Amino acid sequence: MKRLRTFIALAAVPLFLAACGNLSSSSMSGTSGSSKSGGTQLTGQSSDGDYEGVIKSGHYQTSKSRGVTNSQDSGNTYNLKSFENGMLNVSKKVFSTKKYVFQEGQHLSASTVQNWLDRKSKSNATGLNPASNGSTSSTGRNPIYIQALEEQDYMTQKNNKLSLGGVTIGIAVNSVDYYKKTQYGATFETKISKAAGEAYAKKAANTVLKRLRKKSALKNVPIVIAIYRQASNDSLVGGDFIAYSNNKAGATSVYSWTALGEKNYVFPVESGESSPNSNDESSFSNFKTEVQNFFPNLSGVTAQAHYNGKSLTGMHVNIQTQFYSQTEIISFTQYLQTAAQKYLPSGVPIDITVSSTDGVQSFLNRTTGSKKFTSHVFNSY
Amino acid sequence: MKRLRTFIALAAVPLFLAACGNLSSSSMSGTSGSSKSGGTQLTGQSSDGDYEGVIKSGHYQTSKSRGVTNSQDSGNTYNLKSFENGMLNVSKKVFSTKKYVFQEGQHLSASTVQNWLDRKSKSNATGLNPASNGSTSSTGRNPIYIQALEEQDYMTQKNNKLSLGGVTIGIAVNSVDYYKKTQYGATFETKISKAAGEAYAKKAANTVLKRLRKKSALKNVPIVIAIYRQASNDSLVGGDFIAYSNNKAGATSVYSWTALGEKNYVFPVESGESSPNSNDESSFSNFKTEVQNFFPNLSGVTAQAHYNGKSLTGMHVNIQTQFYSQTEIISFTQYLQTAAQKYLPSGVPIDITVSSTDGVQSFLNRTTGSKKFTSHVFNSY
Repeated sequence: MKRLRTFIALAAVPLFLAACGNLSSSSMSGTSGSSKSGGTQLTGQSSDGDYEGVIKSGHYQTSKSRGVTNSQDSGNTYNLKSFENGMLNVSKKVFSTKKYVFQEGQHLSASTVQNWLDRKSKSNATGLNPASNGSTSSTGRNPIYIQALEEQDYMTQKNNKLSLGGVTIGIAVNSVDYYKKTQYGATFETKISKAAGEAYAKKAANTVLKRLRKKSALKNVPIVIAIYRQASNDSLVGGDFIAYSNNKAGATSVYSWTALGEKNYVFPVESGESSPNSNDESSFSNFKTEVQNFFPNLSGVTAQAHYNGKSLTGMHVNIQTQFYSQTEIISFTQYLQTAAQKYLPSGVPIDITVSSTDGVQSFLNRTTGSKKFTSHVFNSY
Repeated sequence: MKRLRTFIALAAVPLFLAACGNLSSSSMSGTSGSSKSGGTQLTGQSSDGDYEGVIKSGHYQTSKSRGVTNSQDSGNTYNLKSFENGMLNVSKKVFSTKKYVFQEGQHLSASTVQNWLDRKSKSNATGLNPASNGSTSSTGRNPIYIQALEEQDYMTQKNNKLSLGGVTIGIAVNSVDYYKKTQYGATFETKISKAAGEAYAKKAANTVLKRLRKKSALKNVPIVIAIYRQASNDSLVGGDFIAYSNNKAGATSVYSWTALGEKNYVFPVESGESSPNSNDESSFSNFKTEVQNFFPNLSGVTAQAHYNGKSLTGMHVNIQTQFYSQTEIISFTQYLQTAAQKYLPSGVPIDITVSSTDGVQSFLNRTTGSKKFTSHVFNSY
């Protein structure tokens, strides 16, 4: 039941408002076969690399299992964003953003997903997690392997109508299963190796694929299944996608897996650990030193670094500050614009967020192709 | 003493590091008369409309009265940003961003400003606020008129040296003075009319100008004095600059004041009040309705609107959301990009910030000249 933490009663959705939401820039306005009280629109695309989303009768088409899929958020908030973003990225390998439109999963209900995520038991035959073996010892018990399962739908557009063109299922497996022996008791941990988690998830993926094929809407579309390994609760970055399979329309068992060499690191790297490229580490370290000299009391400079194999593919830099005056924030942000360009690795997209206890103060951004960082200072009249 | 809330012990500044911080894009690198252990650099400019700031020996040149000037933050955090940004904007009328470089105030120390902000008394002859008359009744007492006073320095650059080219002093007067009759007791209010506050501040400005002229460094530079009226603590927007005077080099009394017709409003406007232009109000109201239909549980859509006379000159829109999944935030942000362009007033700069209890989730921005909004979704690996 804890998985229902943020479950939103769909019954509470206000009544559909007719004839509103005809966005002028939408590529399909006011025409849809599925609803007579309004039309289907798209959200608009902010860049070529993003999917557009689906609006029905002025409302965003939320996921049928909304809330359940947020379960992994409880321990490490990085996992949730990382998991959903990663699913989009894996999907882009198969479903082009030029041809497909994103829709939140409409075929798995909240109760279905919840049952799948629970342990298998007499009352829950569809549970994908192993039945309890009665043990509460960290090495003797059967851990919860699968922590989250999410559906994303990819729609194609023809004659002003959207139809399902493919589905991506994300399966998140734990690297550590946190459990309690008694209610409100201490939290214990069962570690799950990468190999064991991956093997368990791949078996579950096969089961999931068979189940999905029993739904008539999903019988004949490509289904991508991607396996994600959650980061532990103390991590400052989310987990990693380790493999995906692209299952052709109609296939009822997973034919092959493609390994993904993506991995996240936190800079500065903890002593004893190392990242794939020490040049990136020292670039970041020079940046950090330089920036920490700038102000007398800068609390922390860290970064999430994303690697594909040995290549850095992006970075999120996080700068925590003491309280600054607005002019200090403006000057600091200008300075960062220069320092980041000089010190941080070139050729990859980088975000820098400057926060204080009052929240985000400013942020800087460099996209893949650009040399310069753009910046924005959050302001108030 | 409460004014010292965030006062930062300057003695705690780490020792200057020699020969670091030679930013390649700085317009003056490694040369300064004032410091032998390092050079003076500039922060770099993020846009033509912003001032560059001063870095000395790799450190940002913080204000001599750092912390004291943050006093007004205690009640309404909007006032502080609004006050400092407004001082920059008033300064731009006199000191061109092309010619002048911004430096935090270096001529008024923390203790000086603190004494000036306190009441006049036997032990504090320089207090700019009236001596206590012994009354604690909200209408009978002498209120604290002047809540904050801040110095900004504007430097000119010649032969690779910076010298003081002008000073801006901001004087913030209360619209409401919050006071306690007993320590830890209830808070009472003395209201100060715009006319009374303005008259008091103008008299104080004259005193301040005379005092500044006694400092040799400030004898012969233009001194701009700007008067700001603080918003009350329950306001969702900062206060307004009401007047400024540009005092030529050497002038020891304020010759004339220029009234500023700038005023901030909060949308939706409270019932019974009105903004200068009802079209802007209804544009915002349409936007709000449209956006609130998009998701089942959007908590709030408000805006700060900045007017110059009857003309809207900018807007900060604030959207508070319940927890959303990452794909929902992406779609919502794409949708906002279209909806904002369609519904919000055109031709003025507009920011939109989307926040949840986890902090800022995404933001959109349109600059003065552009038609389209750019957007950024905060992300995590």
